[in-house]
Amino acid sequence: MAQRQGRQIQFVEDKQEFSRFPTKAGRRSLSRSISQSSTDSYSSAASYTDSSDDETSPRDKTQVNSKGTSDFCVKNIKQAEFGRREIEIAEQDMSALISLRKRAQGEKPLAGAKIVGCTHITAQTAVLIETLVALGAQCRWTACNIYSTQNEVAAALSEAGVSVFAWKGESEDDFWWCIDRCVNMEGWQANMILDDGGDLTHWVYKKYPNVFKKIRGIVEESVTGVHRLYQLSKAGKLCVPAMNVNDSVTKQKFDNLYCCRESILDGLKRTTDVMFGGKQVVVCGYGEVGKGCCAALKALGAIVYITEIDPICALQACMDGFRVVKLNEVIRQVDVIITCTGNKNVVTRDQLDRMKNGCIVCNMGHSNTEIDVASLRTPELTWERVRSQVDHVIWPDGKRVVLLAEGRLLNLSCSTVPTFVLSITATTQALALIELYNAPEGRYKQDVYLLPKKMDEYVASLHLPTFDAHLTELSDEQAKYLGLNKNGPFKPNYYRY
Amino acid sequence: MAQRQGRQIQFVEDKQEFSRFPTKAGRRSLSRSISQSSTDSYSSAASYTDSSDDETSPRDKTQVNSKGTSDFCVKNIKQAEFGRREIEIAEQDMSALISLRKRAQGEKPLAGAKIVGCTHITAQTAVLIETLVALGAQCRWTACNIYSTQNEVAAALSEAGVSVFAWKGESEDDFWWCIDRCVNMEGWQANMILDDGGDLTHWVYKKYPNVFKKIRGIVEESVTGVHRLYQLSKAGKLCVPAMNVNDSVTKQKFDNLYCCRESILDGLKRTTDVMFGGKQVVVCGYGEVGKGCCAALKALGAIVYITEIDPICALQACMDGFRVVKLNEVIRQVDVIITCTGNKNVVTRDQLDRMKNGCIVCNMGHSNTEIDVASLRTPELTWERVRSQVDHVIWPDGKRVVLLAEGRLLNLSCSTVPTFVLSITATTQALALIELYNAPEGRYKQDVYLLPKKMDEYVASLHLPTFDAHLTELSDEQAKYLGLNKNGPFKPNYYRY
Amino acid sequence: MAQRQGRQIQFVEDKQEFSRFPTKAGRRSLSRSISQSSTDSYSSAASYTDSSDDETSPRDKTQVNSKGTSDFCVKNIKQAEFGRREIEIAEQDMSALISLRKRAQGEKPLAGAKIVGCTHITAQTAVLIETLVALGAQCRWTACNIYSTQNEVAAALSEAGVSVFAWKGESEDDFWWCIDRCVNMEGWQANMILDDGGDLTHWVYKKYPNVFKKIRGIVEESVTGVHRLYQLSKAGKLCVPAMNVNDSVTKQKFDNLYCCRESILDGLKRTTDVMFGGKQVVVCGYGEVGKGCCAALKALGAIVYITEIDPICALQACMDGFRVVKLNEVIRQVDVIITCTGNKNVVTRDQLDRMKNGCIVCNMGHSNTEIDVASLRTPELTWERVRSQVDHVIWPDGKRVVLLAEGRLLNLSCSTVPTFVLSITATTQALALIELYNAPEGRYKQDVYLLPKKMDEYVASLHLPTFDAHLTELSDEQAKYLGLNKNGPFKPNYYRY
Amino acid sequence: MAQRQGRQIQFVEDKQEFSRFPTKAGRRSLSRSISQSSTDSYSSAASYTDSSDDETSPRDKTQVNSKGTSDFCVKNIKQAEFGRREIEIAEQDMSALISLRKRAQGEKPLAGAKIVGCTHITAQTAVLIETLVALGAQCRWTACNIYSTQNEVAAALSEAGVSVFAWKGESEDDFWWCIDRCVNMEGWQANMILDDGGDLTHWVYKKYPNVFKKIRGIVEESVTGVHRLYQLSKAGKLCVPAMNVNDSVTKQKFDNLYCCRESILDGLKRTTDVMFGGKQVVVCGYGEVGKGCCAALKALGAIVYITEIDPICALQACMDGFRVVKLNEVIRQVDVIITCTGNKNVVTRDQLDRMKNGCIVCNMGHSNTEIDVASLRTPELTWERVRSQVDHVIWPDGKRVVLLAEGRLLNLSCSTVPTFVLSITATTQALALIELYNAPEGRYKQDVYLLPKKMDEYVASLHLPTFDAHLTELSDEQAKYLGLNKNGPFKPNYYRY
Repeated sequence: MAQRQGRQIQFVEDKQEFSRFPTKAGRRSLSRSISQSSTDSYSSAASYTDSSDDETSPRDKTQVNSKGTSDFCVKNIKQAEFGRREIEIAEQDMSALISLRKRAQGEKPLAGAKIVGCTHITAQTAVLIETLVALGAQCRWTACNIYSTQNEVAAALSEAGVSVFAWKGESEDDFWWCIDRCVNMEGWQANMILDDGGDLTHWVYKKYPNVFKKIRGIVEESVTGVHRLYQLSKAGKLCVPAMNVNDSVTKQKFDNLYCCRESILDGLKRTTDVMFGGKQVVVCGYGEVGKGCCAALKALGAIVYITEIDPICALQACMDGFRVVKLNEVIRQVDVIITCTGNKNVVTRDQLDRMKNGCIVCNMGHSNTEIDVASLRTPELTWERVRSQVDHVIWPDGKRVVLLAEGRLLNLSCSTVPTFVLSITATTQALALIELYNAPEGRYKQDVYLLPKKMDEYVASLHLPTFDAHLTELSDEQAKYLGLNKNGPFKPNYYRY
Repeated sequence: MAQRQGRQIQFVEDKQEFSRFPTKAGRRSLSRSISQSSTDSYSSAASYTDSSDDETSPRDKTQVNSKGTSDFCVKNIKQAEFGRREIEIAEQDMSALISLRKRAQGEKPLAGAKIVGCTHITAQTAVLIETLVALGAQCRWTACNIYSTQNEVAAALSEAGVSVFAWKGESEDDFWWCIDRCVNMEGWQANMILDDGGDLTHWVYKKYPNVFKKIRGIVEESVTGVHRLYQLSKAGKLCVPAMNVNDSVTKQKFDNLYCCRESILDGLKRTTDVMFGGKQVVVCGYGEVGKGCCAALKALGAIVYITEIDPICALQACMDGFRVVKLNEVIRQVDVIITCTGNKNVVTRDQLDRMKNGCIVCNMGHSNTEIDVASLRTPELTWERVRSQVDHVIWPDGKRVVLLAEGRLLNLSCSTVPTFVLSITATTQALALIELYNAPEGRYKQDVYLLPKKMDEYVASLHLPTFDAHLTELSDEQAKYLGLNKNGPFKPNYYRY
Repeated sequence: MAQRQGRQIQFVEDKQEFSRFPTKAGRRSLSRSISQSSTDSYSSAASYTDSSDDETSPRDKTQVNSKGTSDFCVKNIKQAEFGRREIEIAEQDMSALISLRKRAQGEKPLAGAKIVGCTHITAQTAVLIETLVALGAQCRWTACNIYSTQNEVAAALSEAGVSVFAWKGESEDDFWWCIDRCVNMEGWQANMILDDGGDLTHWVYKKYPNVFKKIRGIVEESVTGVHRLYQLSKAGKLCVPAMNVNDSVTKQKFDNLYCCRESILDGLKRTTDVMFGGKQVVVCGYGEVGKGCCAALKALGAIVYITEIDPICALQACMDGFRVVKLNEVIRQVDVIITCTGNKNVVTRDQLDRMKNGCIVCNMGHSNTEIDVASLRTPELTWERVRSQVDHVIWPDGKRVVLLAEGRLLNLSCSTVPTFVLSITATTQALALIELYNAPEGRYKQDVYLLPKKMDEYVASLHLPTFDAHLTELSDEQAKYLGLNKNGPFKPNYYRY
Repeated sequence: MAQRQGRQIQFVEDKQEFSRFPTKAGRRSLSRSISQSSTDSYSSAASYTDSSDDETSPRDKTQVNSKGTSDFCVKNIKQAEFGRREIEIAEQDMSALISLRKRAQGEKPLAGAKIVGCTHITAQTAVLIETLVALGAQCRWTACNIYSTQNEVAAALSEAGVSVFAWKGESEDDFWWCIDRCVNMEGWQANMILDDGGDLTHWVYKKYPNVFKKIRGIVEESVTGVHRLYQLSKAGKLCVPAMNVNDSVTKQKFDNLYCCRESILDGLKRTTDVMFGGKQVVVCGYGEVGKGCCAALKALGAIVYITEIDPICALQACMDGFRVVKLNEVIRQVDVIITCTGNKNVVTRDQLDRMKNGCIVCNMGHSNTEIDVASLRTPELTWERVRSQVDHVIWPDGKRVVLLAEGRLLNLSCSTVPTFVLSITATTQALALIELYNAPEGRYKQDVYLLPKKMDEYVASLHLPTFDAHLTELSDEQAKYLGLNKNGPFKPNYYRY
């Protein structure tokens, strides 16, 4: 769900510790074992109902759904009806999955599939999970993030028969306990993994090696998780074919270019009510994320400057009508600074010192390292929280810098992600699962694969009806002239779009 | 110089016949042996001086330059001074090549290189050729197109000591005679080829196999020429490493996306003086060419519809704010139709019959097959040439369709290509020659290569000063964090930009 | 603060009843006496502190500020410190007023002015009020809207010595009580009125005719209030010069064109999280408001259709790249409908019946009459409130139409107005007060005036430093050539900008 | 046809001398008597046929059309057929006039009108003239510019029975001779004048005062002509009602905003082939002309700076995303300078000295005074004409500044004006003639009038079918609510659009 730069980023600091089982009590020693992505705050999937009055841990409660099952662990099974409505609303914007249900339902392409999943648990992922079920799969699910679960949706899924182990506000111990409950079920053995971040995959790999060996395929959607898979693969330890959903064209363009174009304005407005017209903005990084941000800001009347390290992207910025500068050249004059680099310390304390009063600083890039926020936590600076996610950092002379989301991803923290974008990723995941589960022996080795071009094209085609878009079909003669199959794929793998 | 779709197009009809040497008289039997690209009309490189009074063929004249050399064959060596001024003007917009001359001059990286070249002969290519000479190469040159030579520039080059064999308005026989004179020089043997279209390469391959074997590298910039090289390679007959300059990022984005964004408006205005505001336009194909055309037209107030066969490109069109339709849905209402597909018969006679009065039809795609122009040459339709490159095709009921450039490439026929775009390609060619000529034994096999990413980035960096753009440099710490070399390459090969 | 169409709209239904003094108890009979603008919900000026625990009416409390004064009536004087910080933050974006304080402070151009004001009471208007005080005026203030008061700001003003009578959530009786307290002060008689909506003006006119006669000037900023003044003037009853601030260029362009360009996306995102890319939107009305909405939506990738009654605006829409249609032509296909007409029943029940599932309907125009919301309150339709300001209206077949803010102004209800826009209006008001207060006898008759062009230009010039914009000055020679004064005014009154 | 700034510009230098009749020989003393507009070069109306071989003056030839009439004077009556085709092509884009012919033909609203006209004589004005004839008028016509006549069109009109006195390349003496022949016809006395520039009006006023007194109306479309009328009016000498067509909304927006948006790119490309992407451009003046230029340039990827003297326009520029600077701030860095001010010496020699090598300088404003071209005609600078309308001015150090059209209007000199724009003006002229000719006694006094709003709206409505645009009609209820007539006018006179 998060945008990233094209470059594979090496997370040398991210080494995980999987040596111990969590206990009910939890232990501080486990605090390093949770991945970054699992703790990012995530505001868009807000719970609509308030359950703050019930302080009992779900692990200490026994709940039964209306069919008498208790193979799940959620906040409150009674919220199921509310969650069902949320799922129904999400279905309206995820017609690609609904149409996939219809097209593939007769044949049940996932009959026999036993899928363990670890994703955000929201109305949108619920539509995915229920699509997998409709296609024949059995599913057990857990959350990839301790904050992002919509409790009502988890209840609705559990009521509908999916075993969900997740609630909003899990402790780190809870997090691993849920993953374990998801995998470790007597008389049931998973044969497919759908993961977002790689925590579930690693847990199965480390704790249940015998299960891992028999998995028929892993589908992974995050940068981090994909990186871990490539590391496993390099180390010769990946004994299962895996599908890298993160780098498919449709996901990349939508999660990065278009999604950022949609969310940058929203994130800035919701936090600061800033007027865009005439504002001087510097965007650090002109990859897909930067391109999306710049397009939106320029369109609304901002004057945008770019910083870049890559001369090719810099040349694109020039041709697109942006001045390419070093940050120091404009640091004293700009009204807004947005980082989109995937790099660290792109905005330094020294530069923060020189910004003008009222300058807004935020991050749309990979992680909260892009702005050196830590450097601002010094005694001479005062922090004032003026709204949720908005801090004024005040210099001794009264100058205020407006820091958003403490340098974490602005759009995940302060705006929402369109359901349509989530639909594209979810459809890609469903197709990847179908492909891996049904692939003839030998098509996929023990390696990490990109989704075949033709399936990327299929995902796209499922989303065209939303726009009432009508594809043109090649005539036989044209297909022959172009040397193409009439049904695609239509482009070579290296095509840049 | 021509845009194309990303897909390699298979030119099964393009089989060439190289079996006979041209004679002075020329023969009809040779009429099939000349490649399409060599006969495309090409208006942008207009000759400024009028030499129509001199009807003598250059092949029948003996000319001597001021240094006493006559190893060249051009229209009129006396036009050299005028051509020199044209070259000087072009140098102003090709500062990347000038700066390459300066950076690499001390070491003369092309010392010993004997280059035969076959390109358009214009002020811009003259800047390239003289850069190669400045870097140490000896050059002999011929034209890749019988119409495009700027006679004054050919004269200026010949005066400066480059052996040029080219003039505007060559016959097909002249064309091959020039190529042969270029290659076939006693006591001098080419060791590098720079080609645009593949005609020179094929001539050397067919006629001088012994020369061909000793070539150290071929640099080819056209779709067609690259396609021929891949065919040779597949057939196991390519005994020389070749560099595919056509598919480098900078060339692709500039020749397609940006160049079409620049030229579509110009081509339409110069031919028809059409007002863009409020016009309904259908653009067939949303690849880079289509994207460039659409961006410009939408920006000037046109209402643009897209046709597409590829669902991914179609989805991009939707997100970019264009309705995706089948051509027949809008054929009766649109004011302008632009083909950008690389396909054939995208606009059929049936559709031409249904267009409204005054509809403008033109092609920005690969070749003149996109619009079925042949189908318009029937007795019931009247053709009226109203301006150069503009025909009114008149139906019996008086309806007029405005056909531009008889369906050939609009921007090559009716507008100009910015020198800056040519500079990028020329710089890439120069670097590719340097790379192949200096590569250590074994780095390149007998295959077709793309320019290394790092050199693409270098080409881009040479063009940034034009925009006064300032790159940011990675700190050591950042480079380590990203796992990158501070000097690039900055992106993986599959990065889409 | 609200956008409107250029046409003076006649509020024949708006006849007010001013015959009775409010009583503490209030009476139903007064329910017609409150103007529409005074009851519009207004979300942008949210109170940050929660005072819901204190249910005592401010009218029943005695409060004293730190200087011992109790000539005010606000929710809780103890919130003053919090309000002061809000004012300080607003000051950062209202530097034009601050600079006006500095430029005019020495001469105190409002010395002796006794101003009664009736506006929204927010941090932004506080900056205006304190500017008037800094320029020498004495001020007493009340709220023009029963919902919009920021209690903390009212407290801060009262603490600073401005007599404020206002709180959030006034009853209608409270509303008039506050106005009366504001005007009716023994030993103090107002000589200037600053009004927004005309309620204060009418109160003084009706209840204190002797005060009214001695007023030196009225400054009015709303459509409604201006309309009332013109009616008074026509009826020969306006015995005071009045300044129509609403129709000044800077206010019009900013409140309408730019403000709507800024807020339409924000309003839609905050309520529905809709993705803009590829959405089909119909905007009813292509005046300044419609132009602003269309520019933003098109820029973000929406496909926009226009409906218009005026052929000139329709022609502009065509040239700007929008198809001009009748609503019925596109009613079944569009995803979003936005009214910007100032008209009524622009969207009818019949059209609502034909919209597709999920269609979003909202109003950016003058009032909540544009969409026939009343027609949706029938038994066969189910209303479901899914978020604040968002209703799903559900048809018997399950179709949902998403109605925002129940058809009231979307941007006032669901987004914020940039402080910069408010600054322009506030500065214009301050200058209008100064102009009227200092005008030599006879310059202004008993009529309604527009701000002199030169003062419009002065307001604009005060806002240029925000953008670091540098004006060019005419040389003497140029001024003579153009027949202009070097200091303006630079355009004739009819100039359209 | 020329854009201008909103401000009435005072042409103190433009005093005309009308004291003498021209003689066949012509005299140098008359050289000051021809207005600026009548000598501006005008490239768009190129003659397609070459008549350079015939050097005889039309005044010395006797020609007879096919009906036996010789009451005309054109280059060559035999070119009539070619001219007819040009007129037919123009008719295709002027459907508003054709539809006006149809709507008004039955009643012949110009029956009895005897119109003398003085305009450019092109295919487009021919459509206007023939419309006037179709509506019942008798017409005699002459050219307002000595260069702009399309000889073939003049022939076609003369063949069709309109008495035309005009040819391309008139001398100044010819110019006045033609005007006189047009007016001075025995047994025929004009009762209406249609003028462009005011030369015809002045000739009648000065030479035929008795005719002038009986004129029922004058329609004038140029800034200059309108200015002269206002001067006559002020001086109390205008004894005829006149219609100022120049300041009507539709003409202003189309001739300035939209027309410049269309033509700035075209003018720059045709002359310099400049690439727009990434170019730094400064546009002097942000009126309608500047707004049009900026919109197009920004859309094509240029980085645009603005200079302004008027703070309101400057504030608009800021909000539209342009930096507002003084010219000196950016003079050394910009690639293109465009003047759009109506002012003089906006670009001075001092600034020309500081421009960088290759900088392009051109004018889209009122006249050739904006750039101080005269200052460049000094001995140390070399002028080199590199193309038609393109001069390189070369400094001693080799720096070249590229001056377009010698500082005259770029779009009139180097690009074309869309027929659609001309159609709007022509339709407005026709309606103005009808209005004045048919107005009841007393509706118009001896003054200069703007076209009534309702007729502006009618002109617009006649042009909507070109875009297939469909107007919405007010219901009775809505019209009553808005206080409008259902048929318009829909806006107050001061509405800004």
